[in-house]
Parts: sequence; structure tokens; C-alpha cells
Amino acid sequence: MSELPRFGAGLWHFASYVDRYAVDGYAPPLSTLEQIALAGTVEDLSVVDVPYPFTPGVTVDQVKSALAEAGLSCIGVTPEIYLRKFGKGAFTNPDPQVRAEAMELLHEASGVAKELGADYVKIWPGQDGWDYPFQVNHHDLWKLAVDGMKELASAHPDQRFVIEYKPREPRVKMTWDSAARSILGIQQTGCDNIGVLLDFGHSLYGGESPADAAQLLIDHGLLWGMDVNDNLRGWDDDLMVGSVHLTEIFEYFYTLKINGWEGVWQLDQFPFREDTVETARASIRLLKALHRALDTLDIPALREAQARQDAIGAQRLVQDALLSCMGGGR
Amino acid sequence: MSELPRFGAGLWHFASYVDRYAVDGYAPPLSTLEQIALAGTVEDLSVVDVPYPFTPGVTVDQVKSALAEAGLSCIGVTPEIYLRKFGKGAFTNPDPQVRAEAMELLHEASGVAKELGADYVKIWPGQDGWDYPFQVNHHDLWKLAVDGMKELASAHPDQRFVIEYKPREPRVKMTWDSAARSILGIQQTGCDNIGVLLDFGHSLYGGESPADAAQLLIDHGLLWGMDVNDNLRGWDDDLMVGSVHLTEIFEYFYTLKINGWEGVWQLDQFPFREDTVETARASIRLLKALHRALDTLDIPALREAQARQDAIGAQRLVQDALLSCMGGGR
Amino acid sequence: MSELPRFGAGLWHFASYVDRYAVDGYAPPLSTLEQIALAGTVEDLSVVDVPYPFTPGVTVDQVKSALAEAGLSCIGVTPEIYLRKFGKGAFTNPDPQVRAEAMELLHEASGVAKELGADYVKIWPGQDGWDYPFQVNHHDLWKLAVDGMKELASAHPDQRFVIEYKPREPRVKMTWDSAARSILGIQQTGCDNIGVLLDFGHSLYGGESPADAAQLLIDHGLLWGMDVNDNLRGWDDDLMVGSVHLTEIFEYFYTLKINGWEGVWQLDQFPFREDTVETARASIRLLKALHRALDTLDIPALREAQARQDAIGAQRLVQDALLSCMGGGR
Amino acid sequence: MSELPRFGAGLWHFASYVDRYAVDGYAPPLSTLEQIALAGTVEDLSVVDVPYPFTPGVTVDQVKSALAEAGLSCIGVTPEIYLRKFGKGAFTNPDPQVRAEAMELLHEASGVAKELGADYVKIWPGQDGWDYPFQVNHHDLWKLAVDGMKELASAHPDQRFVIEYKPREPRVKMTWDSAARSILGIQQTGCDNIGVLLDFGHSLYGGESPADAAQLLIDHGLLWGMDVNDNLRGWDDDLMVGSVHLTEIFEYFYTLKINGWEGVWQLDQFPFREDTVETARASIRLLKALHRALDTLDIPALREAQARQDAIGAQRLVQDALLSCMGGGR
Repeated sequence: MSELPRFGAGLWHFASYVDRYAVDGYAPPLSTLEQIALAGTVEDLSVVDVPYPFTPGVTVDQVKSALAEAGLSCIGVTPEIYLRKFGKGAFTNPDPQVRAEAMELLHEASGVAKELGADYVKIWPGQDGWDYPFQVNHHDLWKLAVDGMKELASAHPDQRFVIEYKPREPRVKMTWDSAARSILGIQQTGCDNIGVLLDFGHSLYGGESPADAAQLLIDHGLLWGMDVNDNLRGWDDDLMVGSVHLTEIFEYFYTLKINGWEGVWQLDQFPFREDTVETARASIRLLKALHRALDTLDIPALREAQARQDAIGAQRLVQDALLSCMGGGR
Repeated sequence: MSELPRFGAGLWHFASYVDRYAVDGYAPPLSTLEQIALAGTVEDLSVVDVPYPFTPGVTVDQVKSALAEAGLSCIGVTPEIYLRKFGKGAFTNPDPQVRAEAMELLHEASGVAKELGADYVKIWPGQDGWDYPFQVNHHDLWKLAVDGMKELASAHPDQRFVIEYKPREPRVKMTWDSAARSILGIQQTGCDNIGVLLDFGHSLYGGESPADAAQLLIDHGLLWGMDVNDNLRGWDDDLMVGSVHLTEIFEYFYTLKINGWEGVWQLDQFPFREDTVETARASIRLLKALHRALDTLDIPALREAQARQDAIGAQRLVQDALLSCMGGGR
Repeated sequence: MSELPRFGAGLWHFASYVDRYAVDGYAPPLSTLEQIALAGTVEDLSVVDVPYPFTPGVTVDQVKSALAEAGLSCIGVTPEIYLRKFGKGAFTNPDPQVRAEAMELLHEASGVAKELGADYVKIWPGQDGWDYPFQVNHHDLWKLAVDGMKELASAHPDQRFVIEYKPREPRVKMTWDSAARSILGIQQTGCDNIGVLLDFGHSLYGGESPADAAQLLIDHGLLWGMDVNDNLRGWDDDLMVGSVHLTEIFEYFYTLKINGWEGVWQLDQFPFREDTVETARASIRLLKALHRALDTLDIPALREAQARQDAIGAQRLVQDALLSCMGGGR
Repeated sequence: MSELPRFGAGLWHFASYVDRYAVDGYAPPLSTLEQIALAGTVEDLSVVDVPYPFTPGVTVDQVKSALAEAGLSCIGVTPEIYLRKFGKGAFTNPDPQVRAEAMELLHEASGVAKELGADYVKIWPGQDGWDYPFQVNHHDLWKLAVDGMKELASAHPDQRFVIEYKPREPRVKMTWDSAARSILGIQQTGCDNIGVLLDFGHSLYGGESPADAAQLLIDHGLLWGMDVNDNLRGWDDDLMVGSVHLTEIFEYFYTLKINGWEGVWQLDQFPFREDTVETARASIRLLKALHRALDTLDIPALREAQARQDAIGAQRLVQDALLSCMGGGR
């Protein structure tokens, strides 16, 4: 049996949530430190992605200590360029002053990432985009998005940045919206310290095959991080991984495996109404089962079936492995 | 030229908003009274739908006065059965205690509706439903939904209730999700004081034709209220009416007209990043243009084209009316 | 281990297909008799649903003999009210003469169903609906749909009819488009010999939960037939069952089981580019695995979890059963 | 008033259609020459895109004469690499022999394009892709797609090729599926005689903003052709242009205008159940109205609004122009 991957999670997995209806939040708010402590109770969790700024009053040193105490390390830092100030965009905000403030926050977060020993700064420009037809000049908007990314990455040549693309939400349409467009944009920056963090769910509801998106990114040397979850293909529901698309999540991990991709298997889930720790536990239990299934899968036979583009043969092999992974003498 | 309809809006049109990312809100919060005052500045607005409970400290009498001062009347009251306490459902909450608390709030809101002289209590059970396959027993869930509605309506025989169906959000799947299912459920209650409030956008992104849904409800005597907005057909974006689906919103109002439906043309929009008052003004300007277009439309010719199911003929007639409604010397 | 269900398939599963691009067909055409012979080679197949008219020159007696020889019986007859003549609709065609011709074909097919000993005549009015906003008067269209169904069923009081609803395709929008609307329409006919055939894939890409739709139909005594397949939730792809939505197809069969529904597990798949017999074999292999999984599933524990609406608990139980069903000592 | 663009259409606009249900076709088949004659009766039509092979027995010389007689010229030739032989793919077919046959047809079509004086050979690889998870190795599939395109274009350095991307149909997922991916792939070929033909509808139901896609392609110098139609955002319905998305088609043409794009405004519609000539006439009538609206639009004011990303301001300006374009004293 092959070695287990490291498991990780966005720290927000252990937060509480609001949305536009439950404005009082689905649960009482938790500080960054409390979230870290909760994450630490999930046995198989090794790393977390930490949003910045931390909740009010929390310092980098406190976060460091909390992580150490929880037995966790920091894989990435996510600057919160999607709060009120940046409601109309961070990199692409129409107001140059707000863009400058976004850049300032991004620089600051890059410093924090270094202090925390993070692998990357994760850029998720959720407010960059538009809501209405005719609202923006598409040439100008994309230029702002690319130029801003270039300015940021150029200022920190020894730091890695990953862009997490997403088709939409909170903006009705986001600028960095697909694997292919992200590759294009990164090429336009000319920077070699920008890669992509592929979110399985974003890819899925964006109409991509996540396995195909992963392969395309790998073939361009740009798959630097990833996280998983699930949804009903129409929205970023951030459900528990494997709760809907078992075959496609399995194909996704299969693609990573045959390419020798060895990064962290990370959770990006929003358990609005569930216990956050139990959600993580159940999710990792499923990820381990998928990992076992990959060990069982007859990969040479599958490769042959794929060479023939033999859908039936491939399905049989996949079902044999996937539908046995919880069974028997493990 | 036919008489203008009355225009209305959900009071939340003039609130500020949070979502799961901009947790500090897109703008500072406003009290119920401040929202009413803003609504009052929209020249053509006659009625509002008021959420209950009001913001902290606001009384019914204050709301009454504020409405009077703003020149507005209250068309409906919307009990907020979607806040934290009801995160796992109101009518369908698994906990009988929480269901009882929801019922209590609903009774209270019914009383407030009477005090405010509202036409109806609007039931929007946004948290009633499920998120995951296998999470619920569908028989039991639907029974809770229907029985609860029956209990509520039976307790207030002289009060009208309208159900605003919606396919999803905030739950991944909601119980009252379509026009047809709402009619079925209302029939199951056996109550004659429950109707439907049709939200154009909910119908659209739920895969219905809103015009067809309106007709079906009218044919069952159940279209007791409605509101409009727009979206990209994948989510309840609550954009400005007419910003995307001009032809379909026109067909919707056409359907109301030929059926002699004479209720309020109401806005249910969430201007997250826009000025709320200006959004309402621009929206009503468009609604008036659509109203003019209906006056221009050659309805007898359209009826003939429809009798032949002649798509081309119908489109020509519709374009003639719709694409001239801002023109000329008015 | 509980007894296996009977397995069935639409006879078209063994046909060849055209679409608007491969106008010369993905494979050479096969006669009704050839299709029956192919179906007969699928070991576990007991019943087929037979389209009528048969391919040119084939008689009812020949079909009877062919079915007998293939060891198959006829579960249903599907009148082809979607060919050229009915391109603008069968029940809802704007031309009364065409409607009459459709009715004639439907009567004829009802006779054939009797001769073949079919359980039902399956009504799939694929061309009944509309393509464009404003093309039809929705009141009139729905009335034609319901009245026609009533006329048909009333003329054959001892024959059962099932409506197979579908959201769209080939029409951009179809009249009988959901479980709830089908129930409503059937109630409007007042006939007790009309039920519903639930197609898993139609329900799925129509935005329903197929399990919920099944429950709703069962609760109305109207689930008289069903078939399964899979898709990507955006279109009726008619892929092999279980190739995408393993958990939801499992929930669907679970729902049938706890309701004691004992009909045929039928395939409605379009293997455009695959071997049709092998597709059926692989699909039934998967259905048997799901059947084993149902035997393994801890139903009392699942019921408890569902009473709490406990998504995590339910997922764990489901994964234990589903992800072991191919494994071990079966 | 600015000069009218040239109008064009895919020749198939004047054909008849089959689909998987109406296998006898919605109307009797028409030869290539008959289709050209019909196209010639549409007053404003100047150019057509001609599928190759022609219908049986038709020669290049006959097509030339027919075009001349109809007053039409040939803008493009579309090789039919989506018929039965290529049901499992053309460039990406698993069988090298079939790939070779596809290449042969493509070379042949390139010759025909020269003879007909076409601007480009249009490559629409509708069968290149996959249907099932795990069916293909994504790396290999994409490589076949790109290498094949390179081989083709390299063999005809003086000929222009345009790729018409599409998310899906007839394959459940197609290889060239978006503007960004098409740009990436074209860059990978290294060829300077490959561009993109942007289909408005493909972009729309693929989740892009067609205006944004056009801008991205223009910014890469790759928008070499385009065609328009409409749909409900879930499928390639190929409805009449402007019948659903008036604002977005207007934004699309606006984007072309401000970039000085001066190509043909081409129709790619499938009037399954409508008169094909009347559909074209009604569509061009609408395109002319949109052209007038562009003349009316206050572009400087719109640019200012867009610089502020002012959705309301932009909508007002757009409505003023769009909703007057059929009116008044033109």
C-alpha cells in the first residue's frame, strides 16, 4: 500500500459562517486561534491555509504558537481581499486608491506567509469581476487583473503565489475563472513565481472536468496546490468531498497519481450547519478510502482501456476499485 | 395609455448586505426605519414588504409612523425564519422545539401584519430543505412542510399567506421549489388562505418559464403576489430587472396583463455593490418602459401568432413593441 | 440477501442513433426484430419497452415471436409521437388535424400494447412544448396537453398509461416537465388509469432530487414505472447508470426499497458510440452491486440519522455500504 | 448612420434537420444546391459557410455556379468531421487510421476552400472529446487535438483555419471548449494561420460572457470569424439571435465595434420547426436594429460609466439605445 498523502484544510473549515440570509451567522464566531485549536483535533490533519488578517487582536506569534501546539503547519496564507473595502474588486477595483490598499494588504500577507513558513500566498480575488452586462470594459478589467498580479509577484521574487480561480461568487462573474484562462494570464505576467491552486468544486461547477483541468495545469507546470469538496454542479456548495461526485473525485486523484503529483490533499469545505470537526473527519476517512482504491485500481488495464477510449472497460475497472474501497480486510 | 400599476419593493432592497465572504458587509447596516426612509425617496414606490423582527429596538408603531411619513404602505410582512436559530429549518427543522419557536415567530408576524394592514404574510422558508443526498427522509420532510403551513394558516383564517417558492439557497435544495409543487402542497393543506408569491428570478433559474408559471398559478387562483429581478439563470443573483432577460420579463408582464392580474409590480433585488435607491429608480424606469411596450404591443396579432405557435411572427411583434419602448417623444 | 429485481430496458437501448450532426447515424440502422434479438443476449434482461410503429414491415406477430424467442416480455409500448409529422407537437400541435393523427396513433399503440401484453402505454410527448419566449399561450398549451391525455385515457379505461416527464429536448421546453407538474396534470384529467414513469436522468437534470421525486410520486400513488441512466446534470446525456452519480442513484433505489416499490429496474440509455449489449451488461452489473449495497446498508441507523437530518452520519453509513458493494466474498 | 456590416449564414441554416428523436427529419432533405438557392432569397445575405462534402453528386463547379447565381460568396468551408466515421473523434479518434482519414478529408476541404475563394476553413471538431469520466487520458487527448491542428495548418501555410470552440454536444465534453483554451492550444501549435471563430451561443452556454470572450480573442489577434444565435444558457439551442439575450448580444456587437472589428455578422441557427428563410429574414431585421442601436448609443458616456464600473449608469444608457432601436422615424 502506497504512503498516505498529507492532509490539509483551509482554516475557515473550522470557522462559523454567515450568508445573506442568516446574517447572525450559523454559529457563534470563532477567533483564528480557536479555529486552529479545532483543526488540531482532527487526527490526520497536518497543514492549514490561514486567512489574513487574523481575527481582531490575534498576532502572528500567537498563530505560530497555536499552530505548533496543534501540531499543524501553515501551507498557505490567504489575504482577505474580499471584505467590504474590496467589495467592488481588489486588483480590478475602479478606484486606484482601493487597488493600492489591496496591494498593501497583499504585500503584508506575503510577509506574514514568510513568517509562518507558508509554501505560498493564495490569491483568491473573489470580488474581481462584474455583475452586469455592460458594467465593465473587458479589456481594461483583464489588464488590471494581470498587471496587478504581476506587480505583486514581481515584488516578492522568492515567494510563491497561487491563484485560485473560480467562475463566480461573490461576483456574478469573476476574472480568473478557469484553468485555461489562469494559464493564459500567468503567461502574460511573465512571472515564474505564480502558479495555480485548483479547487475541485470550482472546476466542476465551472463546466470543466477537474481531472482534465489538473492535467492541463500539470502539463504547464502550474499545479502548485489544490483543494477538494463537492457540489451539485451549479454552485460552489462546498459540500463534503465525495458526497456527490465519487467517480469524478476518484478520476481527479487518479490523474494526480499518474502524474506523480505529491502535494497536500486539502479540504475547502463550508460546513454551514454541520459540526466542523466531524465534517473534516468524515471527509478524510473518505479520502483515505479513495487512496486505498487507487492502490487497488488496475492502472495498466485502465491505461489500455483509455488508449481505446473504451468507456465501458474503464467504468468496470473503476467500479471494481472504487466500490470496494470501504470493504474487506483493511 | 393604460393606467400604471402600483410599484413596490421588499424593504431589504434598501438594506445593506453580507455574504459568506464579505462578512463585514458591503455597507454599514441600516435600521428598519432608515430603510423605510430610503424607500420613501423613490418617487414611484407605493408599497413595501417588511421583514420581521425589525432591527433591534424598533417597534411596530415606529414602523407605522415611518411608513406613513415615507408615503408607503405595507403590502406584506416577511417573518425571518432563516436566521441562525432556524439554520436547519423552520417548518422542517428536525427539532420539534425549534419548529415550535418558528411557529411562534410566525404567529407573531401574523399579528404584526394585521397591525400594519398588510395584504399578506409572506412565507419564505429558505432554510427548509436539505444539503446532502441521504440527509433526509423525503416523505417526512415534505409532510413537515405541508403540515406546518396548514397549522399556521388554520390558526389565522382571516389572514392571507403567500408562499414564495425557490429552488435553492441558502439550502442546497429547498422544499417549496416550484410553482407546480407549491400548488400541490397548498392543495394538500386544504386551506383557502394560502397562495403563492411568484419571484421572477426564482422561476427563471429554477428552469421554469416565469410566464408559464404565472399562468399556471393564475389558472389555479393562486397568484396572490409577485416580485421581479433578474439573474444569469444559474443562481438567484437578484440583479436589476430587465438587465439580462428583457424578452422574458416582457412575456411575464404580458401574461399578467392578458389575465387581468392587477397586483403590485414589486422589486426583489439585492444591490450588493450599488446605490440602493438609484437601483430602484432605474428598475422602475424600466418597468414603466415595459408597461408602455405592453400598450404598444399588437395583442390581437400576437394571439393569432400564438394560436399558430408561430415563433417568428411572435418575435417580430414583440420586438416591434419592446425595442421601441424608450424611443419617440416621451 | 434479498431477491433480485427484474431488469428491463427500452428497446432503443439496442438501436443505433443519429443526431443533428452525425446525420448518417453512429451505426447502421437495426430493425425492431434485430433490436429484440440483441436485447435477448443480455443475460439478466427480462422485459423491454417497445416503440411503435415498429421499423418498416415488422408485424405485431413477428414482434411477439421475437420476444418469446429472446426470452423477453413487453413491459410497455411507446408510441412515436415525436417523428416529423409531430415535430410541432402531438397533443399540443397547433393544427387540430395533426392532433387527431397523433390520437389515432396513440389509440393504435394502445391496441398493440394489449396484444403484446404490456403493462402500460408510455406517453413521452417530446415535441409538446415550445422553443421561444412568446411562442405559445401557456394556458392553451397546457389545456391541450391535459385534455388530450384525458381523451386518450378515457377511451381505454382498462389500459394503464404512464407519462414520462422531461424538462426539455427535443423541444427547448416541454409541457410535462416535472414530477409535481405531472401529478397536477393527472389530477386535472380525473383519470385513474394515468400514472408516471420516472426517468432518473430527467429528474436529475431537471433540478429535482430523483429520490424526492420518487417519494412524491409514491405518496400520490403514481409511480408506475421508472428507468435509470446518468448525465452531467445539464442535459439528458443518457449515460450508463452509475457512471457519474453513484450516491444519488443509490439514494433513489433506497427510496424505492423503503417504500416497498417492486417494479422493474429499467435502463433508458443511449450508447451512441458504445456497444449496446456490453453497455447493458455493464449497467446491470452495477445495478446488482447497488442491490447488494442496499442489503448491506444499515437502514435502521440511517433512519435515525435522517430523523436528525444528520448529513455526516448518513454519509458515513452510505459510504460503508456503497463503497464495499463490489468487494469481498460475494 | 454607420455603414451596415455584411451579413452571412452557415449554409445549414437553410437545410433540414434530424435529431435523435425525429429520426425521419423535421423536413425533407435538401441538396447543397437547393440550400444555396434558398439562401439567395434572403435579401441581405452576402456570404455563406459551406459544409463539405456537399450532398451526394454535387460538384465544386456546381456550387460555384449556384453561389454566383444566388449572389453569394463563400466565407468558409466546414469539413464534416462529425459524421459516422468520426463518431469517436476526428483529430482525437483512438484509431490512427480514422485520424488519417479525417486528415485526408481536411486536406480535401482545404482545397475546396481555395477553389471557392473562402476566407477560411472552419474546424469544428464536434466529436473530439469524451463522454464518461475515466474514458480518456486527458494529456494524450489534448495532445492529439493540438498536434492534429498543427499538422493540418502546417500543410497549408497560405490557408487560414478557424477553430469554432464549443463546450459540448455531440460529445458530452469537447476538447476545444472555450476561448481561453483555444488560445492556449493555438499558441501550442506555433502556427500563425490558425484563429478562432467565436459562436455567441457556444460562449454563452459555456459560461463565458461572449463580449469578454470576443475581447480576449481580439487582444490575442485571434478573432477571425464569428456567428450568432441564442439559447437558454444550458444548451446550444441555436435559436434566433436576440430572441432571449438582447442585452448581451448588444454588448457583444458593442465590443466588436469599439475594437474596430469589421468582419461578417453571421447566423448559425437551426430552425428545426420554422421556415428557414423567414428565420433568417427576421434575424437580420433584428441585427439591423442592433446596428442602429449602436449608432444611437452614447459611447463616450458608456465608457465613463464603465471606467467607474457603474452598472446602473451603463444600464440606463444601454436601455436608452436598445429599447428605441425599432422605434421612431428611421
